[in-house]
Amino acid sequence: MKPNRAITFARSHRSRFISELKELLRFPSVSSAPKHARDVCACARWLALHLKSIGLQHVRLIRTSGYPLVYASWERDRSAPTLLIYGHYDVVTAEPLGQWHTPPFSPVIKGRAVHARGAGDDKGQLFCHVKALECFLRTHRALPLNVKCIFEGEEEIGSPNLLRLVERYKTTLRANAAVISDTKMQGPGRPAISYAQRGGVRAELEVRGPEQELHSGSFGGAVLNPLQALCEMIAMLHDERGRVAIPGFYDDVREWSNAEREYMARAGPTDDKLLHEAHVEQGWGERGHTAYERTTIRPALTLNGLSSGHGGEGSKGVVPAVATAKLSFRLVPDQDPKSIAQLFRRHVERITPATVQCSVHLEAPTAPVLIDRKHPAVRTAGVAYKNAFGRAPVFLRSGGSIPVASAFQEVLGIPVVLMGFGLPDARIHGPNEKSYLPNFYRGIETSIWYMSLAAQSLRSALPRPATSREWLV
Amino acid sequence: MKPNRAITFARSHRSRFISELKELLRFPSVSSAPKHARDVCACARWLALHLKSIGLQHVRLIRTSGYPLVYASWERDRSAPTLLIYGHYDVVTAEPLGQWHTPPFSPVIKGRAVHARGAGDDKGQLFCHVKALECFLRTHRALPLNVKCIFEGEEEIGSPNLLRLVERYKTTLRANAAVISDTKMQGPGRPAISYAQRGGVRAELEVRGPEQELHSGSFGGAVLNPLQALCEMIAMLHDERGRVAIPGFYDDVREWSNAEREYMARAGPTDDKLLHEAHVEQGWGERGHTAYERTTIRPALTLNGLSSGHGGEGSKGVVPAVATAKLSFRLVPDQDPKSIAQLFRRHVERITPATVQCSVHLEAPTAPVLIDRKHPAVRTAGVAYKNAFGRAPVFLRSGGSIPVASAFQEVLGIPVVLMGFGLPDARIHGPNEKSYLPNFYRGIETSIWYMSLAAQSLRSALPRPATSREWLV
Repeated sequence: MKPNRAITFARSHRSRFISELKELLRFPSVSSAPKHARDVCACARWLALHLKSIGLQHVRLIRTSGYPLVYASWERDRSAPTLLIYGHYDVVTAEPLGQWHTPPFSPVIKGRAVHARGAGDDKGQLFCHVKALECFLRTHRALPLNVKCIFEGEEEIGSPNLLRLVERYKTTLRANAAVISDTKMQGPGRPAISYAQRGGVRAELEVRGPEQELHSGSFGGAVLNPLQALCEMIAMLHDERGRVAIPGFYDDVREWSNAEREYMARAGPTDDKLLHEAHVEQGWGERGHTAYERTTIRPALTLNGLSSGHGGEGSKGVVPAVATAKLSFRLVPDQDPKSIAQLFRRHVERITPATVQCSVHLEAPTAPVLIDRKHPAVRTAGVAYKNAFGRAPVFLRSGGSIPVASAFQEVLGIPVVLMGFGLPDARIHGPNEKSYLPNFYRGIETSIWYMSLAAQSLRSALPRPATSREWLV
Repeated sequence: MKPNRAITFARSHRSRFISELKELLRFPSVSSAPKHARDVCACARWLALHLKSIGLQHVRLIRTSGYPLVYASWERDRSAPTLLIYGHYDVVTAEPLGQWHTPPFSPVIKGRAVHARGAGDDKGQLFCHVKALECFLRTHRALPLNVKCIFEGEEEIGSPNLLRLVERYKTTLRANAAVISDTKMQGPGRPAISYAQRGGVRAELEVRGPEQELHSGSFGGAVLNPLQALCEMIAMLHDERGRVAIPGFYDDVREWSNAEREYMARAGPTDDKLLHEAHVEQGWGERGHTAYERTTIRPALTLNGLSSGHGGEGSKGVVPAVATAKLSFRLVPDQDPKSIAQLFRRHVERITPATVQCSVHLEAPTAPVLIDRKHPAVRTAGVAYKNAFGRAPVFLRSGGSIPVASAFQEVLGIPVVLMGFGLPDARIHGPNEKSYLPNFYRGIETSIWYMSLAAQSLRSALPRPATSREWLV
């Protein structure tokens, strides 16, 4: 099935597509915030109805113990290959709200970008595929190949349910390849395919001192301040060379060949470019590695937040009762998230002063992912990008984590094609997140090209698809 | 003027006094929170009207650039000595509200205590004097001596305006002694007079990293995290022996004689008692000193709060943009708050990593205070306590700071009598602050005794009082 008519359709419906994307962006589907539970579910329902309206079959909201998975499929014939399309409709919190120039859930177009939480991560990207599907279905009443879509609502909290579901429904989800668009390109018009993702594990560290806040005049100097203890413990998590100071942490970190590191140096961003994207002047981190290496082939431990005692306006002379830090590890091959969690727990026990209590809560262990750049499913993505953007993609490693990617590879045994449409300055997870509209348009065309080409190139590969009956539970 | 009729009056009006105290406690007069500005002013007005209603003269709300000072006086005759009574009607924030068993500004009686923010610090204590004044005025239409009351609304933010006003109106405020009830006793029925206060200075330390929050996958490991930097800097503020690690910090700390330390050991709380009051099991701090010494004759640096990045529910994979810590120094003779502020600023400059920006904001420098235990004004307080509580007070050092105390001594040249009625478990500054009602009743009687006795004992001392005309600006 040639892409031409679908592409023509896409080009003539851009403004409607943008309106629909804005509808999707309007849901404050913050999966980490219980107060947004209804919004997350409403977003899932909207998405499911939308998939039905464009002509997909077997549209389902799969219940989980958390947020529903939106499933839809389209079955051509048993001889055609099957493509699994994954995306997530949940977003991270938009706090701190004060730093947004326009409200995070009132999407607006400024210049050539749409500004909203989720514009880049990941609603804007998953919607490229949704619209590509529509373009085929409207112009051919068919797709070039079999498609299964799963759009989840818990990616930003570590996909706790999806990982179990992939295991449980591995027959249903059988496919020849999975495509995920939740990564970034190198810049406008400069596409990139991610061939590696860091894994991770999240931790919350809580240090308790006195039963409740104490007057700092009456007790300051006599009792250990849990906040001070926590800061001192945090200071013991890195050494002065910027390395993580947890014993054994680097034991399983894979060392890469010079050839690979040279490839990375050629294809990846320079230190200057990466720091420019971060809007910081000076880099920091493990010596002997470029910034790109430090965010891809080297693990990291990042403090995500800390709160303790009086944080509001003015001052309050107290010894806090409790101090809580949130941290996240980003892990690389061949680190095992569960072993790292154990090492961390033991290190914390070792460095906790006797005069406070400390508890550690760990969650969302995610394995790092490596993808074979030479797999036909990945090569096809290269051609699709070239056709849509006029330029072949580079292969980049990504520093982030998509929890399900490793499950697709390990459990389903299929390659994962990380076909990102985001720009480096999209401010994902930060205030004023945005998405560059020309990438949205070309992302749709890339997806159209990909489906058209993959119908042939994946034919050589794997199993015939199962029906989606298993979902009907 | 004998105290008997005033005391009889006090005993027969206890329940009305409690109702009035509860009215006073109902104002959320949180001086550090701009949102409570109206409440602080309303509290000042209530207090002024109340002082007028009990028969004081020259009742004024003295405007400042911040919150008003409530002034009232009563002039007997030029030959009588003058007593300055100081208290503060502002309170610290009641946050975190979730930890209160009953709302902080809805005072309730539980058992023999009234629970509310400010019950102990300081509304409940200042009100003892107000009611003592009323008891005399109602029974004698006169007071035993001249009285000037100043009740301020900015003590909890370091008395920024009062200190200037004391300097400006030092003639108006001329008196033979000042009495302040804003300290604690040793326990129920065990009165204490404070003869020392620590001074202090407050600091806010802000570390800025990237312009805005960054995705911790994309950038974790490549840029210095301002929160990590702040924690590492904080870890450098104490050494492993629990001493403040700022060079020069201890240079001016006075060493006390063995005799004084032995007196303190006899009169003051044991480590066990002090830790029991704090509800912690193990002490911490500078070696070679008891907990009582560490909170009185030794300086301390206390972290009051820290906030950075994502502190809410769930997790968010970000590198924070900024991290802010609030700290307070408690200083002892002969440390100078302004010099300490300088040392701190220089130390922070030294330990700030080159890859972040750090700013230091310092405020509320307060000098430490020492009071002559043998001054007639202080001895008289001992007799008043003995008469009211049936037991002579011990002399204790206090770890807290009352900014104006040093100004009274230095600028007005008068002794400050720290006649506290609080109990050690009053939870001042913490959730569920409370005040023990029997101490409120005996506090009133102590104040009655004090005025009655001081009318004689202060006669030997200092200058004749000026009129209050200067206030009428």
